[in-house]
Amino acid sequence: MTIELLNHTESTWHPTSAGTRQALLDPVLGTTLAWAGADQIDMAGCYRWARTHGGGALRSMTYPQRADLLDQIHQTLQSRRDHYLDISLRNSGTVERDSSIDVDGALYTLSYYAKLGRALPDAHRLIDGDRASLCRDGSFASQHILVPSHGVALLINAFNFPAWGLWEKAAPALLSGVPIVVKPATATAWLTWEMVRDVLEAGILPDGALSIVCGRPAGLLDALDPLDMVSFTGSADTAAELRGHPRILRDGVRFNAETDSINSAILGPDGSLQAEEQLVREVERELTSKSGQKCTAIRRIMVPAKRYDDVAQALEARLAKVTVGDPRTPGIRMGSLVSRSQRAAVDTGIDTLSGSCDRLFDGRNRITVQAPEDSACVPPTLFGTQDPDRHPLVHQTEVFGPVATLMPYRDMAHALDLARRGMGSLVASVYGEDPSTLAHAAAHLAESHGRVHLISPDTAKTQTGHGNAMPQSNHGGPGRAGGGQELGGLRALNFYHRQAAIQGAAGVLGQITPA
Amino acid sequence: MTIELLNHTESTWHPTSAGTRQALLDPVLGTTLAWAGADQIDMAGCYRWARTHGGGALRSMTYPQRADLLDQIHQTLQSRRDHYLDISLRNSGTVERDSSIDVDGALYTLSYYAKLGRALPDAHRLIDGDRASLCRDGSFASQHILVPSHGVALLINAFNFPAWGLWEKAAPALLSGVPIVVKPATATAWLTWEMVRDVLEAGILPDGALSIVCGRPAGLLDALDPLDMVSFTGSADTAAELRGHPRILRDGVRFNAETDSINSAILGPDGSLQAEEQLVREVERELTSKSGQKCTAIRRIMVPAKRYDDVAQALEARLAKVTVGDPRTPGIRMGSLVSRSQRAAVDTGIDTLSGSCDRLFDGRNRITVQAPEDSACVPPTLFGTQDPDRHPLVHQTEVFGPVATLMPYRDMAHALDLARRGMGSLVASVYGEDPSTLAHAAAHLAESHGRVHLISPDTAKTQTGHGNAMPQSNHGGPGRAGGGQELGGLRALNFYHRQAAIQGAAGVLGQITPA
Repeated sequence: MTIELLNHTESTWHPTSAGTRQALLDPVLGTTLAWAGADQIDMAGCYRWARTHGGGALRSMTYPQRADLLDQIHQTLQSRRDHYLDISLRNSGTVERDSSIDVDGALYTLSYYAKLGRALPDAHRLIDGDRASLCRDGSFASQHILVPSHGVALLINAFNFPAWGLWEKAAPALLSGVPIVVKPATATAWLTWEMVRDVLEAGILPDGALSIVCGRPAGLLDALDPLDMVSFTGSADTAAELRGHPRILRDGVRFNAETDSINSAILGPDGSLQAEEQLVREVERELTSKSGQKCTAIRRIMVPAKRYDDVAQALEARLAKVTVGDPRTPGIRMGSLVSRSQRAAVDTGIDTLSGSCDRLFDGRNRITVQAPEDSACVPPTLFGTQDPDRHPLVHQTEVFGPVATLMPYRDMAHALDLARRGMGSLVASVYGEDPSTLAHAAAHLAESHGRVHLISPDTAKTQTGHGNAMPQSNHGGPGRAGGGQELGGLRALNFYHRQAAIQGAAGVLGQITPA
Repeated sequence: MTIELLNHTESTWHPTSAGTRQALLDPVLGTTLAWAGADQIDMAGCYRWARTHGGGALRSMTYPQRADLLDQIHQTLQSRRDHYLDISLRNSGTVERDSSIDVDGALYTLSYYAKLGRALPDAHRLIDGDRASLCRDGSFASQHILVPSHGVALLINAFNFPAWGLWEKAAPALLSGVPIVVKPATATAWLTWEMVRDVLEAGILPDGALSIVCGRPAGLLDALDPLDMVSFTGSADTAAELRGHPRILRDGVRFNAETDSINSAILGPDGSLQAEEQLVREVERELTSKSGQKCTAIRRIMVPAKRYDDVAQALEARLAKVTVGDPRTPGIRMGSLVSRSQRAAVDTGIDTLSGSCDRLFDGRNRITVQAPEDSACVPPTLFGTQDPDRHPLVHQTEVFGPVATLMPYRDMAHALDLARRGMGSLVASVYGEDPSTLAHAAAHLAESHGRVHLISPDTAKTQTGHGNAMPQSNHGGPGRAGGGQELGGLRALNFYHRQAAIQGAAGVLGQITPA
């Protein structure tokens, strides 16, 4: 049985036109699971309805009241968790551990923002910083405030996180009082759609606060106005295409992008065998988790030159034991990529890196894939290069699958320099014992990374994982990583608010309280 | 005597090629004052030198040490103030009061950031917010930090503020530890150049911290790398052109824009005669100050419908007394536009608005300009429209000169709605007595304005002016205004820093102090 992902705009479900809709497939079995399309949607009407009805109703509530909405969404979704895991298995081809990263990650992020929101003032706006005097006696002064945008937020999500990718954007937007229009990547839109439908059917949100369009409707960007927002996750190519649209290029629509990046894991120069083991374990996890389809996954591994061979062997030994195939098969550790076209893209990427790197571990020769031959399953590949300074491609090429490259460094300055050659990444992790070495590396890496993850032996049980975007921490990175910022606790609310300086008499500013 | 504006890159002065250089003119007399051009500059070399030498040296200093550099710059420029006012008169055609807005505004902003910087930690980075626990016992946690970017900041300035426009960007950049390359608008580049030369000759800054290129050198954007920054002030057209460049569109160069906007002044529904008088005085000041060539100038004046005629008459009476002409002539209150091409652009804008508005005051018929006929002097024009809902042009057309439009509103909601039709503006001012009415308007206007200026009778002597960008307050606006943020005290430093979440063991995070 296949289902049709109806679009929901102007508080109404709309069927798609049969002629133009796209099939959503099981990437392992190749069967059709659902249909999506959006050719008949009036996006201008959708946005107008969202701004007027959804925005108006959300803004009439206070932060704790909106936090309560997130809490209700969390409860509704929690009750359907098993159903979502099943959709994830079928449409994303992921084993349960990987489906959980997406689904439970979404649930945790929602509950985190519900909790943050409940602690905010029972108010309609936020005070930002202290009052600054503009005259000698302080009778005329400046006070910055944050107010919810009156626009609509278009959330364009990537195929790899249909659940988390939706709610990590939606939770801060709704908590801010901003209505959202969700546009999932078509290949895995089913899970996003199912969650949105469940929330809509539960009647939690005001009319117009949550809309969804699948496929690629005409006017998706054209119908925005200059005070709307777009938060995008996906490829650098698509980000550039969106940035070139007149609404963003010319009219000033606020745009946040989280794109490709070539993240690094660095074994400290003084790292013990224990630290080395932590790095090896983390690299294996990042390579295999969601088949390496995470924008935060480790793509480059930097180790002291004299330990290159040891680390290569340790990684090889671990990767040889990975089982790959149909996630329904017992004992399978790594499922499928999301689609055959992604498999083709990964194959192309492997060919590209083969030109300048050694293959330290080629899963395609070493691992028997337990799935139909034309499935989207791809076993892991570990590349190595002895001279990372001479091979720019390893710092520029993101193969969005279970692929990484090992490289040696001379000293810590060299390692930090190599990491920066990614020209802006989401995350780097450093493995070692000495707190001051780790802290020094972090301060340096912070300049070109949105997050730095420091792993010392005492964190073995508590560390949250190189690739996991925790809602407490900034997610996003400069330069190539898109230049965006998401999560980071209350920082996420800034994108959906407008900051303004209010200049006035002290008595007037006294009236501009959060209440 | 004309001078040549040599370019300064890689710590060396470079002459321009005589064949391609442009003349800088006196906009009143038409005489040639200086020559500028930059066809022989190696921008890649310029940026590399700035990043390596300038950035390295600046980052080796702490915030208070860099604040001391700003203080020295301030002192050096202060000693040459009269010289700068003279250049301003000759190259910008401004009366002394207007030259002072630019020159003294620059000096004040420098001294303000010197003071702010001296109060910062004696450190090389800044701590951002509190630590957030990532596990039950808090042993693994997240701490956000801000570190100076290792890139170069290209500062592209507009023709209307050659002094303030330079230093309001340069002060936060240098205080952040980021080297700058200054690219002034050619028409008025002399003052910028003179100030930069004086600072370079005083030997205050490390080699490579400050470079200047005049004209339009090849590779200005091409030679940037993805971790560099561009801060731009100018037209929306140029901003869109820059945003379309591959370095910004694709590679993630951080871009800040401050562009056109159609700012509003609103007389509150309950405004007394005194409030009305304050509005009239402020509108006159904004129309005439720098001949209306301020991106923050009042372009739309909204008054209760029943007071439309009164305000029109009061403004007409005041504008009729304005004297316009050569700023060297005693008694002249309003000088020239910066160039004849700007005069032509203003004439075109007046023609555009004439199609949908009444001319309430046409200075071209009422005021005798005391300057040569082909000077760039333009007397003020006040338009009026009785039905602002039906004339979208008045909310979209910025005539960058002494031109504004009066319009009536039905009630405060209507006035706020009209103001928002600018689709993102730098500033709105509201005139009235009642603190809660003013505060309510401010909270609403904050959503589409970067700054809201509230004028009540008790602020007559202390208010800082609708159009003055005080360094304490955010400068920039959403949507059409470019979506950028400048000034706002320490907020200005964010653009030149990178924010990152550092995740690690509590003991490791303890090492990441500001020191």
